[in-house]
Amino acid sequence: MKTSVVKKITFCAAHRLHNPQWSEEKNKIIFGKCNNPHYHGHNYELHVKVTGEIDKDTGFVMDLNVLSEIIKSNIHKKFDHKNLNLDVEEFKTLNPTAENIAVVIYNILRPKIQMHLDLQIILYETPRNYVVYPEK
Amino acid sequence: MKTSVVKKITFCAAHRLHNPQWSEEKNKIIFGKCNNPHYHGHNYELHVKVTGEIDKDTGFVMDLNVLSEIIKSNIHKKFDHKNLNLDVEEFKTLNPTAENIAVVIYNILRPKIQMHLDLQIILYETPRNYVVYPEK
Amino acid sequence: MKTSVVKKITFCAAHRLHNPQWSEEKNKIIFGKCNNPHYHGHNYELHVKVTGEIDKDTGFVMDLNVLSEIIKSNIHKKFDHKNLNLDVEEFKTLNPTAENIAVVIYNILRPKIQMHLDLQIILYETPRNYVVYPEK
Amino acid sequence: MKTSVVKKITFCAAHRLHNPQWSEEKNKIIFGKCNNPHYHGHNYELHVKVTGEIDKDTGFVMDLNVLSEIIKSNIHKKFDHKNLNLDVEEFKTLNPTAENIAVVIYNILRPKIQMHLDLQIILYETPRNYVVYPEK
Amino acid sequence: MKTSVVKKITFCAAHRLHNPQWSEEKNKIIFGKCNNPHYHGHNYELHVKVTGEIDKDTGFVMDLNVLSEIIKSNIHKKFDHKNLNLDVEEFKTLNPTAENIAVVIYNILRPKIQMHLDLQIILYETPRNYVVYPEK
Amino acid sequence: MKTSVVKKITFCAAHRLHNPQWSEEKNKIIFGKCNNPHYHGHNYELHVKVTGEIDKDTGFVMDLNVLSEIIKSNIHKKFDHKNLNLDVEEFKTLNPTAENIAVVIYNILRPKIQMHLDLQIILYETPRNYVVYPEK
Repeated sequence: MKTSVVKKITFCAAHRLHNPQWSEEKNKIIFGKCNNPHYHGHNYELHVKVTGEIDKDTGFVMDLNVLSEIIKSNIHKKFDHKNLNLDVEEFKTLNPTAENIAVVIYNILRPKIQMHLDLQIILYETPRNYVVYPEK
Repeated sequence: MKTSVVKKITFCAAHRLHNPQWSEEKNKIIFGKCNNPHYHGHNYELHVKVTGEIDKDTGFVMDLNVLSEIIKSNIHKKFDHKNLNLDVEEFKTLNPTAENIAVVIYNILRPKIQMHLDLQIILYETPRNYVVYPEK
Repeated sequence: MKTSVVKKITFCAAHRLHNPQWSEEKNKIIFGKCNNPHYHGHNYELHVKVTGEIDKDTGFVMDLNVLSEIIKSNIHKKFDHKNLNLDVEEFKTLNPTAENIAVVIYNILRPKIQMHLDLQIILYETPRNYVVYPEK
Repeated sequence: MKTSVVKKITFCAAHRLHNPQWSEEKNKIIFGKCNNPHYHGHNYELHVKVTGEIDKDTGFVMDLNVLSEIIKSNIHKKFDHKNLNLDVEEFKTLNPTAENIAVVIYNILRPKIQMHLDLQIILYETPRNYVVYPEK
Repeated sequence: MKTSVVKKITFCAAHRLHNPQWSEEKNKIIFGKCNNPHYHGHNYELHVKVTGEIDKDTGFVMDLNVLSEIIKSNIHKKFDHKNLNLDVEEFKTLNPTAENIAVVIYNILRPKIQMHLDLQIILYETPRNYVVYPEK
Repeated sequence: MKTSVVKKITFCAAHRLHNPQWSEEKNKIIFGKCNNPHYHGHNYELHVKVTGEIDKDTGFVMDLNVLSEIIKSNIHKKFDHKNLNLDVEEFKTLNPTAENIAVVIYNILRPKIQMHLDLQIILYETPRNYVVYPEK
């Protein structure tokens, strides 16, 4: 039977939902106030879940301080107090919906976590909206 | 790999746990203070989770504003500031336990959500008690 | 300089806002869906704040286990899983708004707490609505 | 003795801290990453507290549905999914720190609330930072 | 389709991470400040999830008051206001990491819950770190 | 009119309530399970509130990053992952009740904050117990 460990961090960022292949009018209809050309923003609450066997010597699935450092240097530094559309390379051609942000975070973290461990991202955009990737 | 999106809403309702096929005494033993004939109530915190593929054009699994409207018109309007036993048709013959409320919400929402998307209900009756339906 | 200690408890109750001296129509206009004759309900989150000097021997303003027992026997037992309008004497002639519930709780607890200690009630009706009595 | 009632709402906005009378270098030193020229953002959690006497007929200090409508039409509509620096008139010449946002909200709401009632704004910029205006 | 019910309780305990087969130096490197020989502590937030079919007569997967009593007498009494390393038999030879605490709780509760019901433990060590056992 | 700014941080510590001038029996009666000689522990949630005028140039009452550094170096470093009774000088002769911990934190921070600013400490020992010092 496997065990998961989860670390939560927060980052604060601006973003705007927009599809450059659509007209301005269609963008407004589909994305509503999230399409504001001047951006808006959120306190994103990120849970990173790592799943595997408990190591007999440490009692850890993975050292949460190590995981925490990986998240800080690879995600927090890159996303916190940033404009996702303008400052984060991955969103120059990808719409920064909560779904896509979760996928981007997963793709950044996956090679940094040992491959025998499973990885899952839970991302709250607001206390009332959140996403899970990958869902089992 | 699939992605889930979750929308949370709150509704406030009165209810009473009671099985009409049992004696008053048995109802009191099994349901305790939840059997109070004058009802009691809760702030129910509802999470509606929808799972599927991310649409390439929108970056959405499902537009959360659309999901929010579906929940408001089909669940919130029907349950909020209501007496579940007296005001909600489904509980006239079904005991409004948190488990049964979750199943009723699932059955109401399932036909309103596209069939290629999975649906799951998480319902907090209090901050210390919650249910999940269907559990994977 | 004084110190406050606060104990939080939850009680779940049904209620209805209604002024018997008004017409049904006026009740509906003023109290809206809170006037539902079949009641609705809430998880009330109660904070009881006691203010005074720190006792040198115990390091306590007031023993929170003693305060907790006073709240349980005088408030929780009387309000939890009850219909405030029908089951609680004080609301037979008083509209159970959050404001009035806070005043009733204050009046019940005041004589149970030593008079050299100040008392304040904070009562959440929902996570988005709360009241404070007495406000300084 | 007076009673307070509090209504909480959330708005999501982008902002940037910047003093146009300072050099770019000084702005970076004082405001750090909050000075990002591309903006960042927050889920602002706003508590509006109104203090006064309980009305005998309603049991209310103030009808929270009325207060809620005042907040929605005067604050939420103006701030939610906006860039505070670019989209909100008041911040064209005022740095949108949490402190200044609270003062602006107070100044907007004060004339909409009856003068015999006291008003206080509590504003969370993140779950770990908040401001209160006016403090007693 | 199965349903889960979850009960949450809190216990407050001291602990220290330490592997007696390692040198003091290695313990400090691996466990850092969690290795403090004088202990530190946490408010552990425990979610016990039980999964099965809803009983037709009660509307319950399992009576949460019964589950609550099982948790109180088997877990809360044993762990609350205790030093996990010194006061809890199971951790005399097992490092009390959050992962191992979750496994110990599972092993204690598993024989107390009917075997046709599935059991899962979710344990928050802090609001920012939690574990799940067994993960599906 | 004055404005307050508040910064929240968490520290995890072990402690034990004990009065060395009392018999073991009296300690057990007064402090109950908090008197466990092997200690227990908590995740303490600390709010530090600073009150004053908003500076015209910065828009700040006090720079929260500066406040945050003051709290980290003077409180977090001293209290986090520590045994309050054994590792923190101030509690060698003072019972570490939540009240006394708040007073100690106030006394440490007061000389580090400019004197024209007011200071208040709010300390949660658990999500259900908290203290305020000084209370107004």
